Amino acid sequence: MSEATINKARLWQSLEEMAQVGPGVAGGNCRLALTDEDKAGRDLFVSWAEEAGCTVTVDEMGNIFARRAGRDDLAPPVMAGSHLDTQPTGGRYDGVFGVLAALEVVRSLNDQGVETERPFEVVVWTNEEGSRFQPAMMGSGVFAGILEREAILNGTDEAGLRVEDELKRIGYKGELPAEPRPIHAYVEAHIEQGPVLEAEGKEIGIVSGIQGIKWFKGKVNGFNAHAGTTPMEVRRDALVAAARMVDAVDRTTRAFRPDAVSTVGMFSVGPGSINVINEQASFSLDLRCPEDEALLELEGKVRAACGEIAGDMGVQLELEEIWHSPATAFDTMVVEAVADGAKALGLSARRIVSGAGHDAKYMADICPTGMIFVPCLDGISHNEAERIEPEQSEAGANVMLHAVMKLAGTGSKA
Amino acid sequence: MSEATINKARLWQSLEEMAQVGPGVAGGNCRLALTDEDKAGRDLFVSWAEEAGCTVTVDEMGNIFARRAGRDDLAPPVMAGSHLDTQPTGGRYDGVFGVLAALEVVRSLNDQGVETERPFEVVVWTNEEGSRFQPAMMGSGVFAGILEREAILNGTDEAGLRVEDELKRIGYKGELPAEPRPIHAYVEAHIEQGPVLEAEGKEIGIVSGIQGIKWFKGKVNGFNAHAGTTPMEVRRDALVAAARMVDAVDRTTRAFRPDAVSTVGMFSVGPGSINVINEQASFSLDLRCPEDEALLELEGKVRAACGEIAGDMGVQLELEEIWHSPATAFDTMVVEAVADGAKALGLSARRIVSGAGHDAKYMADICPTGMIFVPCLDGISHNEAERIEPEQSEAGANVMLHAVMKLAGTGSKA
Repeated sequence: MSEATINKARLWQSLEEMAQVGPGVAGGNCRLALTDEDKAGRDLFVSWAEEAGCTVTVDEMGNIFARRAGRDDLAPPVMAGSHLDTQPTGGRYDGVFGVLAALEVVRSLNDQGVETERPFEVVVWTNEEGSRFQPAMMGSGVFAGILEREAILNGTDEAGLRVEDELKRIGYKGELPAEPRPIHAYVEAHIEQGPVLEAEGKEIGIVSGIQGIKWFKGKVNGFNAHAGTTPMEVRRDALVAAARMVDAVDRTTRAFRPDAVSTVGMFSVGPGSINVINEQASFSLDLRCPEDEALLELEGKVRAACGEIAGDMGVQLELEEIWHSPATAFDTMVVEAVADGAKALGLSARRIVSGAGHDAKYMADICPTGMIFVPCLDGISHNEAERIEPEQSEAGANVMLHAVMKLAGTGSKA
Repeated sequence: MSEATINKARLWQSLEEMAQVGPGVAGGNCRLALTDEDKAGRDLFVSWAEEAGCTVTVDEMGNIFARRAGRDDLAPPVMAGSHLDTQPTGGRYDGVFGVLAALEVVRSLNDQGVETERPFEVVVWTNEEGSRFQPAMMGSGVFAGILEREAILNGTDEAGLRVEDELKRIGYKGELPAEPRPIHAYVEAHIEQGPVLEAEGKEIGIVSGIQGIKWFKGKVNGFNAHAGTTPMEVRRDALVAAARMVDAVDRTTRAFRPDAVSTVGMFSVGPGSINVINEQASFSLDLRCPEDEALLELEGKVRAACGEIAGDMGVQLELEEIWHSPATAFDTMVVEAVADGAKALGLSARRIVSGAGHDAKYMADICPTGMIFVPCLDGISHNEAERIEPEQSEAGANVMLHAVMKLAGTGSKA
């Protein structure tokens, strides 16, 4: 089984061709969901899938399924894929790599005359990024029965254009219902979008799950006073208090465990005038941890640290949870198929928990799921500077080929 | 000399009447410089000054001088006053108290038949607040020869209206040149605009000078990365670094000396997205200290603390000085005249350095100058909730009466 390999040059050529569709301004891409550029990317994928002998179907969410028949064609398929839409100033590989690696698996199975027991489907999910339409991971979320179809189809972009109307306009409002069906396993290849694999010199990340995430909105109320006439000891400065909280959240997370992360992304003050002590400070807080119990424990420590600062500084603090995405543990069968692939190919690998959300998050709710990470330059993503090397794409696609063959079952063609 | 006192009821009545001109929405005032409301306030003052027998003149900056003759009417006058313009949601006493206390001195001298050796002038300075037109302290600044007359007269508000045109429109573009002339002493009564006197139960602040002020613009550059996929130990988070700097500036100032203050008023981050590590943070820094050498020493400590944080966190810091207003030490003769007044009247008093700028700052450059502070409720100012009690206004005006009599020299009228 380990002799089968993908065609590195062909995979890289396809990645390069797709990057010509909806080019960015700095070498990346702008292929927002359901735009003309997205349509062009989808059309290119469909033409390639049909050339590779796949049967292409589209569901009512615009999710595209390119199916290669299995020997037992009624058996639940193995599925692999990701998304083709990008951020407004996105990279060439985020999502695209997972779709084209899966397509390369089809092409390589064809080249090498390999027939699988189960059918194999390459999937392109609609609007993973959530840049033009919210929420993100829209196509996989409806498919998995987590997001409500009608609400999603009625969603609009900033110009007021509806998801469903834009699906029809670009010709990707399909007939198939977007709903769960039996799937033997789902595997998604993706760039890491972080610096861990690169820093450790690993070629493959065997993704064991997706972090739990909690988002909070924080608000500090102090007292507005004159910067010149108010002695330090009587101040109730909302910014100084919030700044101590930002520092405390950072230190608390670092001390908690090495795989926990916290980020204050939004931060503003009021009145925000050069010679006035701030009365208000508002901020967002993003906490992530591989397991939900640990996330809850971290939240408790962060709340305690911030509460103590508020008390010391004589300010009021509200810290309101606004979103919770529970942690996901991937399926052992799929995770081990990925690990076996890396091992068989002699690639250096480590277990890793995904810090970002992916379509695999929703798929894990309806079928055995796993992911394959490849390193990306300096961990940069959601940026036109996003970059991987041909060898890195080859390693990830080869691991996918082996995992798919193992999960779908193989035999020589007649 | 200590028997002479002002008329508390009349002073309070005048404060109440002036507060009816350009009322605010919450009990305070909106009497922006050179508006119809400002004109109405000026007209009211002029009518009162003329009723009190003063000769009223106006200079080319709209500064109003109401002169009570002295026995030696060619001698350089003693001058007292402040401003009648307010912040957009200003209080009833900021500036107004200094003008009407000086007017009450004229009325009381008249009542009690006191003739002074030197003439006494009550002055109303144009646009002290700097809300509608910048810079602040415009009238006294040109009068003292510090601000350039043509540039100031050509300044415009947000609607593009010129200072000079607005002076003409409201009838306060006078003939007198706005330029330095011999003045024996200038004394300005003002509400403290801070909490020190109230907290210590003092009726009078003997103002010994005005703090030195330095303003800085800070910019922190870190690295923009994904909140979920970037481990804490590789981050270069501009917000966390800037937050530590805000905390360090606050702690450094508190440890430095009790009369130093520091304030970060403006604070913003970029990109400011909930799940992105911030690449940039920008902030303003306001440092104040009673003496310039101490201010310089504090600046050094603050720079060292922030620089160390930048180094530890792997971010770049720029901290650029954008303004320096040197410390002002008031004249011993005037300060002691104020102190003698408080003592003669049996009022509790303490020496205090003004944390805010005042017209007296510019006047100190051209003549012996001092100030009298009275406490205000909770130290609140630049706010419609600004409040003083009749007894507090009485104490301040009585100290002014005594200081003016001492500085101008007295004798009974023939």
